[in-house]
Amino acid sequence: LEGEHQVTTEEKMAQLFSARARELHAPVYGAAGQERHDSISLAFGLADPALFPREELLAATAAVLADDASAALNYGMSYRGFDEQIAERLRREGVDADADNVLVTHGSGQVLSLLPDVFVDPGDTVIVEGPTFMGAVKKFALAGANLVAIPIDRDGMDIDSLEEQLRDMAAQGRRPKFIYVIPTFQNPTGTVLSLERRKKLVALAAEYEVPVIEDDAYIDLRFRGERLPSLLSLDTAGWVMRLGTYSKILAPGLRIGYAYGRPEFKQRLEMFKSEGTTGPYITRVVAKFAENGRLDRHIDALNDLYRHKADVMAQAIEQHFPREATFLRPDGGFFLWVQLPQGVSAKRLLERAREHGAEFLPGGNCYAGGRAGDDAIRLAFSEQSAEQIQLGIERIGRAFADM
Amino acid sequence: LEGEHQVTTEEKMAQLFSARARELHAPVYGAAGQERHDSISLAFGLADPALFPREELLAATAAVLADDASAALNYGMSYRGFDEQIAERLRREGVDADADNVLVTHGSGQVLSLLPDVFVDPGDTVIVEGPTFMGAVKKFALAGANLVAIPIDRDGMDIDSLEEQLRDMAAQGRRPKFIYVIPTFQNPTGTVLSLERRKKLVALAAEYEVPVIEDDAYIDLRFRGERLPSLLSLDTAGWVMRLGTYSKILAPGLRIGYAYGRPEFKQRLEMFKSEGTTGPYITRVVAKFAENGRLDRHIDALNDLYRHKADVMAQAIEQHFPREATFLRPDGGFFLWVQLPQGVSAKRLLERAREHGAEFLPGGNCYAGGRAGDDAIRLAFSEQSAEQIQLGIERIGRAFADM
Repeated sequence: LEGEHQVTTEEKMAQLFSARARELHAPVYGAAGQERHDSISLAFGLADPALFPREELLAATAAVLADDASAALNYGMSYRGFDEQIAERLRREGVDADADNVLVTHGSGQVLSLLPDVFVDPGDTVIVEGPTFMGAVKKFALAGANLVAIPIDRDGMDIDSLEEQLRDMAAQGRRPKFIYVIPTFQNPTGTVLSLERRKKLVALAAEYEVPVIEDDAYIDLRFRGERLPSLLSLDTAGWVMRLGTYSKILAPGLRIGYAYGRPEFKQRLEMFKSEGTTGPYITRVVAKFAENGRLDRHIDALNDLYRHKADVMAQAIEQHFPREATFLRPDGGFFLWVQLPQGVSAKRLLERAREHGAEFLPGGNCYAGGRAGDDAIRLAFSEQSAEQIQLGIERIGRAFADM
Repeated sequence: LEGEHQVTTEEKMAQLFSARARELHAPVYGAAGQERHDSISLAFGLADPALFPREELLAATAAVLADDASAALNYGMSYRGFDEQIAERLRREGVDADADNVLVTHGSGQVLSLLPDVFVDPGDTVIVEGPTFMGAVKKFALAGANLVAIPIDRDGMDIDSLEEQLRDMAAQGRRPKFIYVIPTFQNPTGTVLSLERRKKLVALAAEYEVPVIEDDAYIDLRFRGERLPSLLSLDTAGWVMRLGTYSKILAPGLRIGYAYGRPEFKQRLEMFKSEGTTGPYITRVVAKFAENGRLDRHIDALNDLYRHKADVMAQAIEQHFPREATFLRPDGGFFLWVQLPQGVSAKRLLERAREHGAEFLPGGNCYAGGRAGDDAIRLAFSEQSAEQIQLGIERIGRAFADM
C-alpha cells in the first residue's frame, strides 16, 4: 500500500537499544580522525616522529618479555610499579602522592570521556576555558552539560570572571559539576596560568566546593622559563584532580595516560572504564622504558627540539605574516596562538591557505558554541620539521597576502 | 552538639556525582582480581605461560618499530590491516565478513561491559545460559538487567526451553534485549552447542527478533573432533553478533578482542568505548605477529598442549575422584565441569581442598542468583602444567575422601 512502511531489521534492532544508546553520536577522535593531505598541516598537536624512542622502546619490550613475561602477558592488573613511578613524578612536583590514588588509563582522553559519566546529568553546568581543547569539551556537551566558558588572557583563565560566575551560581543555590582547566601551555593559546591565579583558583574551588580538573598534558614540556607549581600541589582541601598523559612525552600511539585525585574519584572512573585495567603488558613496557631517568632524558631531548621548532615558527611568522597578526612566544607545549588582524576571518584565511598547501586550526574550533574565535588561529609546531614549519608559515603568509 | 553531622569533603563531592555514578559498584575483573595462593589453583582460565610466544612477539615489535613507527606511535586509529585479518579469519568460517564491521577492543571483556550500555535499561530482560561465565553476566546484572537463565545439557543450551521462554514473553508483548551464549566449549561446562540447536537458535533469533551475542572465545581451541559452524556463519537475517578474543590464542595481557556484527551495533559500542580506538601501536604488533600463518601455527601448538593437559586432568580425575563424580571429556577450551556425587557440596569440598593445597571454582559461582550449582565444580586445565594438574587433582581427591 502506498505510504505503508516496511519495518527493517535495523529498525527492529534499534527498538532494543537502551535509552542512552538511542541517540547516536559519533565518537570524538580529535586529531586521529582527521584526514591528512599532501599540504603541510600545522593544524593538530601530533608528536614529532623524529624523536620517537624506537630503540629504547624495543629494548624495554625485550626486557619485559625476557624477565617478566608470565605476569606481563597473562590476565592481570595494570603494573603497580608504573603507578609508583607516576606517584614519584607527582612527589617531585611537591604533591604528597599515594600510588593507590593513581588510575592508569588509555590516554588522558579516556578520563575526559569518563568525566561526564561520573559527574554530568543533562543540564548540569561545567565550567571551561574559552578558548579550550574542544576534544574534551565536546564530550561534556554530548552528555548534556551546560557549558560556561571563562575568558583567557595572557596569564591564563580570568579568575575574577570565574569568581563572579561561581558567586552568581551560589546565589541561585547552584554548583557547577567541575571546572576544566589546562593551566600550563594551554591548548590552544599556549598561555600559563600565573602563580597568583593558581592560588586563587585552588582557594575558590575549596570555597565554592567545586572540583577542578587540572589537565596538565604539557607540564613537562617547558623549554624556557621556570616551572610553576601545579594546581594539585597547591591544593590542600582535595578539590583538584589531575590528568596526565604519556602521549606528549613518549608516544601517543601507546595510549597511556592517568588520573590522580581523591580515592572516590578513582573509584567512580573505574566504574565506567569498560575494559577494566589498562593491562599488565603495556604498563610494564612503559614503566621499563621510563626507569633509571630514561624518560627524563627523553623529555630533555624533546624540549630541545620543540624549543627550536617554536622559535623557527615564531621567526617565520614575524617574517611572513602581516605585522597586525600578534602572538605570544610560547615557553612550552605544542601550540602558538595568533590573533589575526582586524577584519580577517580565520575560516576564510584557511580556505586560501589550503589553496597554497597549508593547514591550521581556525580559532572558532576552540570555542564551545562555535560563534567566537574567528579572529584567531592555532598553529602546532609539534609535528612538522623545522623546514616544513618554515614552508607552511610562508604559505599561510601568501594566504594573508591574498585577502 | 550531640548527633550533629559534620559534612565531609567526601560527602560534598559525592553530591556532585551523576545519577549513574552515585551507586558505586566495584569493577568486575574476573580472574585478574583474584588473590593467588601457594596452593595449586585450577580455579581460573588463565593462559599457560609456557607457550607465550615471547621471541615472536619481540620480533613483531621490532618489525613494527623499524618499518612503521611513525604511524604506530603517533595519534591514529586502530590498524586497518588488523581489522582485515579478523575479517579474513571470519571468512574462513564461512562468514561473508566485511572489515568495516570489525571493532577491535581491549579484550572481549570490554564488549561485555559495553553491551548493557548499548541494550539495557533497568528491568530489561537478558537471556543467559545457566551455568555461564559470570564475569559477563555480573555486568548485565549491575546495569539492572532481569536475567533469565536457560539450562544446559551435554549438547549446550536447551533450545526448547529457550523457545518456550521467548514464546511466553512474546505472548506478553515483551522482547528480551539479547541472548548471551557461549556455543563452543562453553564456560564453565565445556559443552558444544549441537549443529541442530545452532540452526534452531539462529532461526528463533530471527523469528522473535532478538539479538544473539555469540561469545566464541574458545572457537579456535578445538583439539579433538570436527569444528561446527559458528552462529554468525549460520545467520542470514543479521541478528547474531560475535565476540572474539586474542586472550586465549595469543596472550591475555595484550588486551585484544573484537566485536563483529551489524554496522549499527559497532556504532553503538563505539559511542560508549571511552578511550576511542584501541590504538595504532598494539594492533600493529598483534597483526604483525599473526601474519604469514604465525597465529595459526601458534594455535596448533596451543591445542597440542591443551589436549595433553585436558587428558592428564581427565585421567587424574578417574584415578582420584569418587566414581560418582561424572564429567564430559572436553574436546577443546579451557575447562572441565564435574558433576559431584549426590550430597557433596562444592563449597564445602573447596574448604577441604584448600586445606590440602588446591583450588577450583564451585559451580554456584557460575549461576546468576547463586542458589543453583553447588552440585558441580569447574576445573581449568589451561594454566597449570601437567604435573601441577595431576598433583592438584590428587589433592582434591583427598578432599573428597575427607567428606
